[in-house]
Parts: sequence; C-alpha cells; structure tokens
Amino acid sequence: MNIVEIAKLAGVSKSTVSRYLNDGYVSEDASTKIKEVIEKTGFVPKRQAQIMRTQKTNLIGVIVPKISTETAARVVEGVTKELSKYGYEVLIGNCELSIEKEMDYLKVFRSYQVDGIIFMATEITPKHYELMDQLNVPIVVLAQRVENYPCIIHDDYHASRDAVRFLLEKGHESIGFIGVGEYDVAVGVERKRGYKDELMAQGIAIDENLIQIGDFSQQSGYRLAKELMELKRRPTAIFAVTDHLAIGCMEYLKEAGYKIPEDISVMGLGDTQIAGLVTPKLTTIHYYFQTLGVRGAKLLVDYIQQGKSSTKNCESNFIFTYRLIERDSV
Amino acid sequence: MNIVEIAKLAGVSKSTVSRYLNDGYVSEDASTKIKEVIEKTGFVPKRQAQIMRTQKTNLIGVIVPKISTETAARVVEGVTKELSKYGYEVLIGNCELSIEKEMDYLKVFRSYQVDGIIFMATEITPKHYELMDQLNVPIVVLAQRVENYPCIIHDDYHASRDAVRFLLEKGHESIGFIGVGEYDVAVGVERKRGYKDELMAQGIAIDENLIQIGDFSQQSGYRLAKELMELKRRPTAIFAVTDHLAIGCMEYLKEAGYKIPEDISVMGLGDTQIAGLVTPKLTTIHYYFQTLGVRGAKLLVDYIQQGKSSTKNCESNFIFTYRLIERDSV
Repeated sequence: MNIVEIAKLAGVSKSTVSRYLNDGYVSEDASTKIKEVIEKTGFVPKRQAQIMRTQKTNLIGVIVPKISTETAARVVEGVTKELSKYGYEVLIGNCELSIEKEMDYLKVFRSYQVDGIIFMATEITPKHYELMDQLNVPIVVLAQRVENYPCIIHDDYHASRDAVRFLLEKGHESIGFIGVGEYDVAVGVERKRGYKDELMAQGIAIDENLIQIGDFSQQSGYRLAKELMELKRRPTAIFAVTDHLAIGCMEYLKEAGYKIPEDISVMGLGDTQIAGLVTPKLTTIHYYFQTLGVRGAKLLVDYIQQGKSSTKNCESNFIFTYRLIERDSV
Repeated sequence: MNIVEIAKLAGVSKSTVSRYLNDGYVSEDASTKIKEVIEKTGFVPKRQAQIMRTQKTNLIGVIVPKISTETAARVVEGVTKELSKYGYEVLIGNCELSIEKEMDYLKVFRSYQVDGIIFMATEITPKHYELMDQLNVPIVVLAQRVENYPCIIHDDYHASRDAVRFLLEKGHESIGFIGVGEYDVAVGVERKRGYKDELMAQGIAIDENLIQIGDFSQQSGYRLAKELMELKRRPTAIFAVTDHLAIGCMEYLKEAGYKIPEDISVMGLGDTQIAGLVTPKLTTIHYYFQTLGVRGAKLLVDYIQQGKSSTKNCESNFIFTYRLIERDSV
C-alpha cells in the first residue's frame, strides 16, 4: 500500500494524500475519505511518509548475544533510553549465542533500512567483517574490540589486574583462576592476561594447575572450584572472571563446608545484581553496563548525524572504566 | 534497489536476476555480474526476493514491557527458541514500561510487515484495543488476560491462594501481604484476590492493615516490610506477590535482626533465579516463564499457518500452571 493506491481508493489526487500525511491543507471531505482508507487498509501513514521524505526510518537495530543475561539487558536498557531521547525506535535481535543468528540480524536490519546498528558481539569472525563491510549503515560495536570500526569496550585487562592485586594485598599468594575460552577476547583472553601479568609483576610464578577454563555457566564455576580445591597445592583465594562463575564457585565451597572468606576468598567481576544478594556478599568489580549502552548509542547517533553511511574506517576505541567493590567474600 | 534495477546495472534480464535469487539456472557470466552488483549496492537479495515471492517477511515482532527483568527475558528466550525452529527471525521492542512505546512498536511492526506479533503487556487500555483492532496482523498476548484476542496467562489467582494456604497450613494466621497497584491486573488484582479469598475461605477475617501496596521495586518490598513490622499486631508471615519484593522484604527483616523463618516467614511468587541464591533460600511458586514463551510462539505460528490476517475474535485463553517450591524461608 502506497500513496498512489491510497489516492486511488480515496478518489483524491496523490498530492492531496501527500499533503494530508505531511499535515498540510486538505479539505474536510478529502481528509475524511483518506482517513477512512487508511483505517480500512491498516496503512501506517506517518512513518511511511516520513521515510519517503527523509530517507530515514528512525529505527536502530541492536544485536545482542543473549538477552536473558543481566549484563546484556543492562546495556540494552542504556541503549534504549538514550536512543529514545533522539526519537529513535530500537529493534532488538536476540542471538542466543549463535553466530549464524548474528549474521541474520545484520542482514535483516540492513534490508529493513535501519539508520544504524549497535552490535554487542561475543566474537568477531572474518565472516562478520565481510558482512559488516558490505552493509551501508553505521555500526558501533560494544564490549569487543574490533579493527576498522568504532567500538566501546570495558577495560578488562586492568580490571583483572586490579582484582588480582587486591587479593595479593590481602596476603593471598596462591590464587586460583576460573576463566572461559579464548574465543571470547574480552572475557577469555584479556582477563586471563591481566591475571597472569599481575602475578608476574609481583614476582609470583604462574602455576598452570591453578588456571581452570570452562564455559559461562554457574555449573562451570561450581565444577572448576571443585577441581581447584582438589589440587594438592590448594589456592587460598579464587578469582572468577564473571560474578556468575564466582557464585557457582561459592555454591560449591559452601556445600563442601568451607567458610568464605575465613577458609578461602572469592572474587568476581561485573557486579551483577546477585553479587550484593548472596551470602557472603561478593567482592567484585563494578562494570557500568548501562552507561556503556548510553555511550554506544550516543556514538552511533553522532555518526548518523554526521551523515555517515558506513562507519568502516571510523576506528575509535573507547575504553570504559570500572570500580572495585569491596564486600564480604575476601 | 529492486530486481529491475539490479538487472539494469548487471546488464541482464529481470528474469535472470529472479532465477539467480531463487537458485535457478544462471550462466556463470551473468551470475558473476549479478553478484558484483549485489555486493556493490548492499542489496540483500534472498530475503527481499522471498518477501516478494511469498508476501511473508518471516519476521515476528515481540513487544516486551522491560527487557531487563528476568521474567521478561525468560519469556523472550522461549519465544525466540520456538520461533527459530520455524525459521522466523524475532525483533524485540523494549518498552521500559511506557504505554506510548507499546503503541509505537505495534505501529513499527505493522509498517515493517511482520508476520505476527507477540505482545507481553503490563496493562491493556482502550487505546491498545483500538490499535490492535486496526492492525491486520495476528497478535498473541502473553501474561495479561485480554478480550477478543488469544492470550496465555499464568494462573495468578490460584497460585496466590496456594501460597496463602501453604502459610496457613504452617500455622500462620496473621499473614502480611505486599502487593502492587491494580493497574496490573495479573499481579495487582488477581494475586490480591487470591490472598483475600483464601483467608476468607479458611474463616479468617481480612485485616486491611496487613495489606501493603507499593511498586515492583526491591526497595518497595523493603519499605513495606518495615511498615508491616511496625504494626501493633505484627504478622508472623509475609507473602510478597513477586520474588523481587520478597527479597527486599527479607533484606529489611535481616537488617532489623529478625531470624527467617524462626521469627517470621517470607514467601514469594515467580521463582526467579535469585530465589535459590539468597540466604535463607526463598520458598516461592515456580512460574514456567520460558515455557509460556514457547507456547505463545507456537500459538502464533498456528494462526499464521491457518492464514489468519488478524486474531481479533480468535479469543482463546490458555491458563498456565505453576508449582510450589518449598525452600528455607517458611
């Protein structure tokens, strides 16, 4: 259904319909007829007319790895709030950690002519780059560092170093590490690098037995804590790279009869809501997820307002700060 | 950019482009030329071609009150998983509890010709009905009862009665109630009605002082628990209509030095992840949020496959069951 068809059905000229849609002068009679046709056909005029006029859809696509994680939800909340201020509608594509789905949503958003895309990625493959380079639409990447595109990331490396330094300052020298696979650069690579570098900087040899790698699940934290506590040379503290893993770790420790922090200390990273609710309350590092979303949205709006049809080669990495939150688990 | 334009740029016929897009026979030379044009123009052919051919977009719009709540996220997860099976892409509109935004997304999804809409609503106003009636697209409503449209709801009334009965069976007669406003029919009206009816059925007079109404925030649970404990006739148990409120309530009680459940029992509703992680673990009622999402998706697919262009007057209310989870807070 377009303006010509509406004009035909309403028995008025195309320019009359156009004036009607753009709030120009239209006789009451014509106005009534056009309104009737629009209501009958379910045509949504204002938006369509606006798109035709401005070549803008006022839509932003947001690609999210897994919407049911609190961190993703908080970033999306920031994105939505900020974009609302500029009159954008946000459409969210939830990928349930599937790379194929990420590709699909990049395509869907392109074919629906969104004005821009915010891409929260878990991992950026060559296929991602190939597709992103093809799409003529500004893209801002959040939470993973990418080449050739603007991105906003957390300072995972230093956050991790600070967590380890905090444990060292509390007198721990044998610190277990619960991490995730290196396919995730931010969480898998950078946080492990921070752990190792801080130990080495303080003259402590790396004990590979103390480094346990699993997936993102709470069960993984539980299982890997068990592995660590069954070592001959047990750690006196455990640093888990996410709060979720730390909670799983604490669950095992409590079940096995260890007192936290008397027998063993636990530290997380992220400061999700749960961190302040478990007993003992989790010492962790606060990440400003919502603010990250806000900044990402703002950056995208800047590019759109500059009239950029692509953000390829608009490289700019913003590294976001964090804050250590001392609670009761260390 | 459409097939005609691509044909022109590639110097081939329209039907050649069409065959190319539909995986029919095309000479290697023509195929290379078409591919080049498509890559250069950023045209996303498969989807567009499919839409032209089938008049279907394979897109489903999901309207969510607030994506950062765990319950909404779990429903969306179920919806996404189920719709993926049928080859649909899901676009999520996050409303941050704004009715205006709900309206906006109904319009956006219509103008982007989604094949169907799943609408998780907080409250259905006459304006919602007016708009839903105008849109020629199947709609399934989740978590609120609506007239004239198919919907799937939780059995809030009986869940609430069962929670209260459980507390009565444990010997409590003075049961405080922490609820929310009646604008939310499922949580505000039905759960309160369940509380009152169960007490009356057991011959216990309603004490209006024991009924405290706030908003959905944890702070509200905290504040209303304080109100209840400052009454002359203090309750021996508190039933909060969401886990979130119950957690806030427990926070106050613990701070004020009460032992749970020795001094006072607390019961929630929903069984969010947090319920099993707080100390003591929260006794609550499990809601199958993800399954609700799956069923909602399935219902919508049924209507689409039946060729329905609207689900108005396809009234069918599915009432979803629940399960009481006994933990340590009662």
